[in-house]
Amino acid sequence: MNSGKSTSLLQAAHNYEERGQHIILAKPALDTKGEDSIVSRLGVERRVDLLVGPSHNLRDVFGIIAANSKANGSPVACLLIDEAQFLTPEQVEQALQIAVLDGVPVLAYGIRTDFMTIGFPGSIRLMELAHSIEELKTICRCGRKAMFNARKLNGEFVFHGDQVALDGISASYESLCATCYFSEKERDAKL
Amino acid sequence: MNSGKSTSLLQAAHNYEERGQHIILAKPALDTKGEDSIVSRLGVERRVDLLVGPSHNLRDVFGIIAANSKANGSPVACLLIDEAQFLTPEQVEQALQIAVLDGVPVLAYGIRTDFMTIGFPGSIRLMELAHSIEELKTICRCGRKAMFNARKLNGEFVFHGDQVALDGISASYESLCATCYFSEKERDAKL
Amino acid sequence: MNSGKSTSLLQAAHNYEERGQHIILAKPALDTKGEDSIVSRLGVERRVDLLVGPSHNLRDVFGIIAANSKANGSPVACLLIDEAQFLTPEQVEQALQIAVLDGVPVLAYGIRTDFMTIGFPGSIRLMELAHSIEELKTICRCGRKAMFNARKLNGEFVFHGDQVALDGISASYESLCATCYFSEKERDAKL
Amino acid sequence: MNSGKSTSLLQAAHNYEERGQHIILAKPALDTKGEDSIVSRLGVERRVDLLVGPSHNLRDVFGIIAANSKANGSPVACLLIDEAQFLTPEQVEQALQIAVLDGVPVLAYGIRTDFMTIGFPGSIRLMELAHSIEELKTICRCGRKAMFNARKLNGEFVFHGDQVALDGISASYESLCATCYFSEKERDAKL
Repeated sequence: MNSGKSTSLLQAAHNYEERGQHIILAKPALDTKGEDSIVSRLGVERRVDLLVGPSHNLRDVFGIIAANSKANGSPVACLLIDEAQFLTPEQVEQALQIAVLDGVPVLAYGIRTDFMTIGFPGSIRLMELAHSIEELKTICRCGRKAMFNARKLNGEFVFHGDQVALDGISASYESLCATCYFSEKERDAKL
Repeated sequence: MNSGKSTSLLQAAHNYEERGQHIILAKPALDTKGEDSIVSRLGVERRVDLLVGPSHNLRDVFGIIAANSKANGSPVACLLIDEAQFLTPEQVEQALQIAVLDGVPVLAYGIRTDFMTIGFPGSIRLMELAHSIEELKTICRCGRKAMFNARKLNGEFVFHGDQVALDGISASYESLCATCYFSEKERDAKL
Repeated sequence: MNSGKSTSLLQAAHNYEERGQHIILAKPALDTKGEDSIVSRLGVERRVDLLVGPSHNLRDVFGIIAANSKANGSPVACLLIDEAQFLTPEQVEQALQIAVLDGVPVLAYGIRTDFMTIGFPGSIRLMELAHSIEELKTICRCGRKAMFNARKLNGEFVFHGDQVALDGISASYESLCATCYFSEKERDAKL
Repeated sequence: MNSGKSTSLLQAAHNYEERGQHIILAKPALDTKGEDSIVSRLGVERRVDLLVGPSHNLRDVFGIIAANSKANGSPVACLLIDEAQFLTPEQVEQALQIAVLDGVPVLAYGIRTDFMTIGFPGSIRLMELAHSIEELKTICRCGRKAMFNARKLNGEFVFHGDQVALDGISASYESLCATCYFSEKERDAKL
C-alpha cells in the first residue's frame, strides 16, 4: 500500500532498543524483495533476524532465538514481523501463542487485501486473531483515503492474475480509494 | 460478544433521527432471534425496515426502499445493519457499492469470528472491504479485554460444532480473553 | 454532543455486571440534570452510586465505597463517571490515582469543549492524563461528522455566555461540524 | 516522547509526494533543535518550507506560500507541522481555518503534555479543535505503554522547572508509564 509499514516497524524497533530492550525482526522468506533485509521507502534499511520459511513453526523457530537471547542476558521484549500477509494461517496462530502463552508482544505489519480486494490467507487470520488492529493510512491520487492496492502491468491496471506478484519485480502497485478502484475496474472491463 | 453492538446501532439511528435525517435499519433474515426486531440487551427494541434474505441483492432491495423514501421527501441518510456477520460475501460487496456508488453511508455491526475463532464469511468480507473498522470492547470474566466468543452447551464450553448456533436458542456464548479461551480449550481437550 | 455518551456508559456498566462484576457509577453534582440519575436519550435510566461534589476528594470518597464493597465480598471492578467534564482538574488527577495506584479502571465520559470551543477545566485535564482517548461520533445537520457543541437560546445560536448552562434547563445545544459552526458564528457576528 | 513523530511526519510527506502531490512542511521557530530541518531519530532529515514565528498569523504565511505554489501549477495538498505543541493557541485556530475554510488538510504532530503532565498551550488547543486525534505509542522502560515525558537533568528526574527546555540542549527526556512516573516523582519528593 506504500503507506509506510516498514518505516513504522523500524521506528518501533528503534523505540524498544533506545530503552535498552532487545527485539527480534522477522519476515516471511516468500518476500524476496530486499533479500534478508527490511527496506523502508524513506531509505532506512535493516537486516532481519529471522526469515520465516513457509513450513516453519513460527513459535518453535522464534523460541530457539528467544532462548539464546535470554541465555545471553537479553530476553526478547518484542517480535516484529514485516510483510505479515505472507505468513501462513498456522504461523499467525503461532504468533498469537507467542503473545499469549509466551508473553512476548508481537507486532505484525502487512497489507489487508490483494489487488483484487481479497485477503491474503495470512491477513485474514491476522484480522481474525489480532488483539488490536491499527490502520496505517495513505492517500489515493485523488486525495481521498486509499483503500485498495491496485496492480499495474506495463503501466495499465489489471484485475486478474496470481495473488502474489512482488512489487517492483513482476508488477507494480498503486493505492486507490474505492471510487477510483471501481472506476479503473470498469474501464478495464470495457477493454 | 455481548459488547453492546445493538445498543450502539440503535443509538446511531437515534442520533440521525434527532437531526431530522431518515435511516434504514436492516438485518439478515438468518438471525431469527428477536424476529423482525433489533433487541438490545439494555432493553431497547425496534423493528427493522429490511430483513435481508440470503439470496437478496442488498443493493437492489435497499435501492427500492431508498427510492420510495426519496419520493416521499426523506432521502435515506444512512443504512444500519445489525448482525452483519450473517450477510453473504456478495451482500457485503453490495453494501460497499451502496456506500461508494450510491453515496449512502453504511454502518455494519457484527462479530468478527465464530466460537472456534474462524471468521464468518460475511465478517471476513467486511474486514477486507470496510473503510474503517472500529472495535466495541467488552471484558472477559478475568477482567482482561475479551477477544473470542466461546460457545457453551449445558454450561460447558465446546470447541466443535456448526458455525452458526443462535445465542439463547441452540447455544449460549461467553466472551473470553485469549488466555482464558486457550485454557478452557485445553481443559476441553483433556476430557 | 448528543452522541450517546450516557448510553455507552450504561452499556459498559451492563457488560461488567453481566459477568458478575461490581461497578460504581458516579457523576459530578454540578450536573443537576436527571438529579441523581444517569438518563440516556435512548430511554435507559439508572441511579448513580456517587454524586461528586466540587470539593470532594474523588479518590477518598471512592475509596470509602470501594472498601465497603470489598468487605461485602464484591470488590469494585470499574469506576464509570458520566459528565466528566464537570470534574475539577484535581478530581481528574485523583481519578488517575484510582486507576494507577489503586488498580481500578476508570471510564470517564464527557464532552471535549464548551459552546465556544474552549475545553472545560475537567476535560482539559482528562485529555492531558487519559491512558486512551476514544471519540464517540455523531453527525452534523449537514451529514458531516460533528465537532462542536453549539448553544441555542430561543432557537438562535449564541457565541457568548457562561461556560456552563445545562442542556434543557437554561439552554439547548446542537452538534455542528466545523464548517457549519463557522458559518453560524459569522452570521451571528453580522447581526 | 521519542515515539517517532518526526518519522511519521516525513513518511506522510513521502506518501503525498510519491503520488505527485505537493506538500508544505512547517515547524515553530521556537524549536531550534535541528535548526530549519526536521530530523527523525531514524536518521531521516529534511528542511522545512516554513518556520513559524510566535507572532506569525499561520493562515496568512501559509496562504502566501500556497498561492505561489498554485501559481506554479502545484497546489498544496497538505500542510504538515512538526513540534506542533509550540504553536500558539491562535496559530492552532488558524490551522483549523486552513483545514476548514481553505480546504487544505493539516497534519499536526506534537506532544500532549510537558514533563509535569501539563499540556502546552498549543497542545491543549489542538486537542480541543482537532477533527481526529491519533496516538503514536511508545513504551516505558518497564515495557508498559508510556504516558508521560519525564525530564532529566544530569541523569536525575526533575519535577519542577520551565515548561520548555529543548531535548538534547538544556535537558533530556524519558517517556515513562504513569506507574513509573508516580514512583520517580515520589522518590524525588523524598530527596
